[in-house]
Amino acid sequence: MFRGLSAFPLTPTTETDIDEASFRTLVARLAAAGVDSIGALGSTGGYAYLSREQRARAARIAVEAADGVPLVVGIGALRTAQVSALAEDAQKAGASAVLLAPMTYQALTDDEVFGLYEDVSRELSVPLCVYDNPGTTHVHFTDELHARIAHLPNVAAIKIPPLPDAPARAKARVETLRALLPDTVTIGISGDWAAATGLNAGCEAWYSVVGGLFPATALTLTRAAQDGDAARATALSERLEPLWELFRVHGSLRVMSAAAEQLGLTDRPNLPRPLRELPPPAHQKLATALTSLGLTA
Amino acid sequence: MFRGLSAFPLTPTTETDIDEASFRTLVARLAAAGVDSIGALGSTGGYAYLSREQRARAARIAVEAADGVPLVVGIGALRTAQVSALAEDAQKAGASAVLLAPMTYQALTDDEVFGLYEDVSRELSVPLCVYDNPGTTHVHFTDELHARIAHLPNVAAIKIPPLPDAPARAKARVETLRALLPDTVTIGISGDWAAATGLNAGCEAWYSVVGGLFPATALTLTRAAQDGDAARATALSERLEPLWELFRVHGSLRVMSAAAEQLGLTDRPNLPRPLRELPPPAHQKLATALTSLGLTA
Repeated sequence: MFRGLSAFPLTPTTETDIDEASFRTLVARLAAAGVDSIGALGSTGGYAYLSREQRARAARIAVEAADGVPLVVGIGALRTAQVSALAEDAQKAGASAVLLAPMTYQALTDDEVFGLYEDVSRELSVPLCVYDNPGTTHVHFTDELHARIAHLPNVAAIKIPPLPDAPARAKARVETLRALLPDTVTIGISGDWAAATGLNAGCEAWYSVVGGLFPATALTLTRAAQDGDAARATALSERLEPLWELFRVHGSLRVMSAAAEQLGLTDRPNLPRPLRELPPPAHQKLATALTSLGLTA
Repeated sequence: MFRGLSAFPLTPTTETDIDEASFRTLVARLAAAGVDSIGALGSTGGYAYLSREQRARAARIAVEAADGVPLVVGIGALRTAQVSALAEDAQKAGASAVLLAPMTYQALTDDEVFGLYEDVSRELSVPLCVYDNPGTTHVHFTDELHARIAHLPNVAAIKIPPLPDAPARAKARVETLRALLPDTVTIGISGDWAAATGLNAGCEAWYSVVGGLFPATALTLTRAAQDGDAARATALSERLEPLWELFRVHGSLRVMSAAAEQLGLTDRPNLPRPLRELPPPAHQKLATALTSLGLTA
């Protein structure tokens, strides 16, 4: 389940709702491209901005459009009771697995974060991926906290933020973390510019934003790393540097939103306010990058 | 409206809902004590953890129980469309004003924060207080951003985080900010341990957590500062240091939740999970502090 390329599509939105038709198209493209799994309603899928009803509807659409490709559904919310309800909805929709980030408003103690995973994981009948994303949750997982959570029932994977750039340090970091986890729990990388480093360092999965719109490109990089060709994976990632630069400045969500518009796959705007689209100069820079990378169709 | 003591009660919760009876009691106590306004569904009121329906219900209960005392209702949410819906609900319930913090999941640009206030303020028929709370929202308001927002229609107040401890520096900070704002916009302090400093420095309001449970104590401090007796206000605040210390370590919400239990005003637990109650040693420390301060009834 949590191995290889997990591609995370946008959930395009209208002013107050989700754009069902565009979302269905985005998911179906990923299934057709042969990704290993699809991650609906991740950070890129704007889960945090949608209502329970919208998320249940998006999960049902994604299961249909995924056409048999394993589907992971994000179930994060601020209140545990809401997370449990979302987990139920995702499972009813037919999700193969769920992804849970510890969203915060009040800062949480480690015991509170653990308690969230304990309360939610015990009710699941599908595997769960722990989503460690300090940039959005402001939770900083210690190794001890990762280990406690990873030993809970149904916990099957951890999605980690970018590793150190230096290959040896990245590998050491993955090995340190792996030593604390049960053998059944995989480690996956996120932060697309760190994907080649992560896969080369031994991560079993790439939770990919760029793969949500350009699955063939992300699959080529993933397969190179899986085949042990670290140099090729690194070169493929370096080629994408114009995209990574935009990701780091504007956030990958805004960049992928603009790219989806440029490809004619969504309307404009397609992000939930207060999020706004890329400023015009960045839009132009993105158009130039996509053309030079041959990513215009 | 946004002057004097604005007292922020808890919204006690059951496992999945709000505890209506306890909430009604807490609000009625504040009205009876003669606070200048009541702030329902602030951070202390756990707004971020409640559904739209629960928040609408809490707002209606608070308006009734406030019995004519001006009521401010928190309308923060991650999506602008949700904030607009909450603003409508609050106004329908009879709120005198609304309070809006720019909640975040994806980090927001300054233009996005401004756009949120622009979209929401234009639809209001009651005044709005800008809630600057970097600890929960992770938004860091620049002075320029404060000034842009303060000039929007219906913006009537800013609720700021703690000021520098040194009185002269605190006063300078308030004066710098005030010079950027229209004359109609008041500045209020939050972070209870900084309240005396803030009021003495010229803030017109104290948005008070402790005042949500101990209104007489908070009123005495507020009135001393309003009467120009800065030394008395400072002394009254220093007396409460055992509480402030617990606030700084455990967060004011968890401490007030435990205090409400100890006073027999709510059940236990009364916080929405994943938030957990104070650990037993802190509970004991709080009991000792309340006894020594004469705050046990």
